[in-house]
Amino acid sequence: MFPVVPGHEVVGVVTAVGPGVTKFAPGDTVGVGYFVDSCRACDSCAAGHENYCPEVVLASNGVGHDGGATRGGFSDAVVVDEGYAVRVPDALPVDAAAPLLCAGVSVYSPMTRYGLNAPGKRLGVVGLGGLGHMAVRFGKAFGMEVTVISSSPGKRDEALGRLGADQFLVSRDPDQMKAAAGTLDGIIDTVSAGHPVVPLLELLKPMGQMVVVGAPSEPMELPAFAIIQGGKRVVGSVVGSVADCQAMLDFAAEHGIAADVEVVGMDYVNTAMERLARNDVRYRFVVDVAGSLGAAA
Amino acid sequence: MFPVVPGHEVVGVVTAVGPGVTKFAPGDTVGVGYFVDSCRACDSCAAGHENYCPEVVLASNGVGHDGGATRGGFSDAVVVDEGYAVRVPDALPVDAAAPLLCAGVSVYSPMTRYGLNAPGKRLGVVGLGGLGHMAVRFGKAFGMEVTVISSSPGKRDEALGRLGADQFLVSRDPDQMKAAAGTLDGIIDTVSAGHPVVPLLELLKPMGQMVVVGAPSEPMELPAFAIIQGGKRVVGSVVGSVADCQAMLDFAAEHGIAADVEVVGMDYVNTAMERLARNDVRYRFVVDVAGSLGAAA
Repeated sequence: MFPVVPGHEVVGVVTAVGPGVTKFAPGDTVGVGYFVDSCRACDSCAAGHENYCPEVVLASNGVGHDGGATRGGFSDAVVVDEGYAVRVPDALPVDAAAPLLCAGVSVYSPMTRYGLNAPGKRLGVVGLGGLGHMAVRFGKAFGMEVTVISSSPGKRDEALGRLGADQFLVSRDPDQMKAAAGTLDGIIDTVSAGHPVVPLLELLKPMGQMVVVGAPSEPMELPAFAIIQGGKRVVGSVVGSVADCQAMLDFAAEHGIAADVEVVGMDYVNTAMERLARNDVRYRFVVDVAGSLGAAA
Repeated sequence: MFPVVPGHEVVGVVTAVGPGVTKFAPGDTVGVGYFVDSCRACDSCAAGHENYCPEVVLASNGVGHDGGATRGGFSDAVVVDEGYAVRVPDALPVDAAAPLLCAGVSVYSPMTRYGLNAPGKRLGVVGLGGLGHMAVRFGKAFGMEVTVISSSPGKRDEALGRLGADQFLVSRDPDQMKAAAGTLDGIIDTVSAGHPVVPLLELLKPMGQMVVVGAPSEPMELPAFAIIQGGKRVVGSVVGSVADCQAMLDFAAEHGIAADVEVVGMDYVNTAMERLARNDVRYRFVVDVAGSLGAAA
């Protein structure tokens, strides 16, 4: 719905609060993620899973309760209900914290919900982008053994070296994949291009689970035997609740985890979009809307 | 591996026990299900999920630890380790109890494992055959509201009348399916012919789960959005552990649940196979191998 103001990984400083606001005060650093409201009445809202409310209001280009389109974080200012904002701990750099609000919570939420956060368990991370590099960092912080699975052999050094993963598998190498069969407790699949899932499911131990957070446009081809024989699960997940988001930020602050970002000015966004289209970013652009981060224009 | 002796839903009376056997004595009525042994050393075995042991030994036409083919329940006698047999409660009729040992536990196990056994929750059962009719009965005994989903409108009376389901949906009727969207906590899909899964996933509430226990030969077409948006899960499951099987039999005895069977003699099995091929049985043939049930030859 044009005109669109994008931005759903937003960090800013509170400038004013309305009457009745108790969670935040002017001067607080806060974050807003993928959504800014929900119906507050359905089972999902009642259970604290606002992200699965059928009437969830997206932070950008959603339809607010006033009927107007929502405007995202590229605005000069954002007005949001305190129930849908989170506190950004002082220990987190504001630029590198921003992508945590969607990319971070999108992997943290299913990892904690489905038990893929236990020391000693073995986690596979498919794809090394905005979500994937966060999954590696959270996995390591949880004390897990992390295997990065990528179609690009060139990502090995990045995965093992800079991000500290324990193993690296090239998904197109059948010998490597076969040797690793049945070794993983869970997989976070972040890839949003179509790809075969059976080879990934074969990496799982019995009763292992694969969490799908990327959304390829083509359907997955999923033979029943690939999940029946080992009692495996394929789980869909989108972002996380407000509580998940706060817990994730607190955990990130405690463990010194943040996203890898490249801060750019607003006048760079068209170039950024072009570079994004060719995956030329490690791993998220952050736009310095307020001009307070000193990004090169 | 011919010659094959089939039969993996077996009920019989103990005639003799070996040294060291403490669980059973001659005269006990016992059951043997889908498997008769496992490696006893892997993580699955250690966790009591023998059904997911990679070296599980099938009751029929498997390879036993002695290297020979296993012979199933159509044998005159079965020799089995006491750890892989279960006690058939006196309250259960031996003929109607037999199919519980595979069809019954195949639905009972995932229902209890994944919380689809809670009073007031809404369960969908796809397909009304050997497994489906057991899922309806267990669902009702758990106090759930049960909806049968079938491609055959003719199964309505059977579902609502004789089996006591609460609702009936014709899966090919888009209006019916749409009206029921987002209403089910879980689905047990027992259909072993290829069928679309997206319309089934749409029946689930947010965070609902679909358990796949039928194994169509064609892969499911599963678009990521169908599970991501509502945080849904597609779970594979095969039979259940020995402990599941015992718990299921005890539950069935307590609640007066058994399978619907047609008891036939051994000389009827070829006819039974022909009728099975055209779905002409409600819902399981039981072969009276010992000739003790007075079946018409």
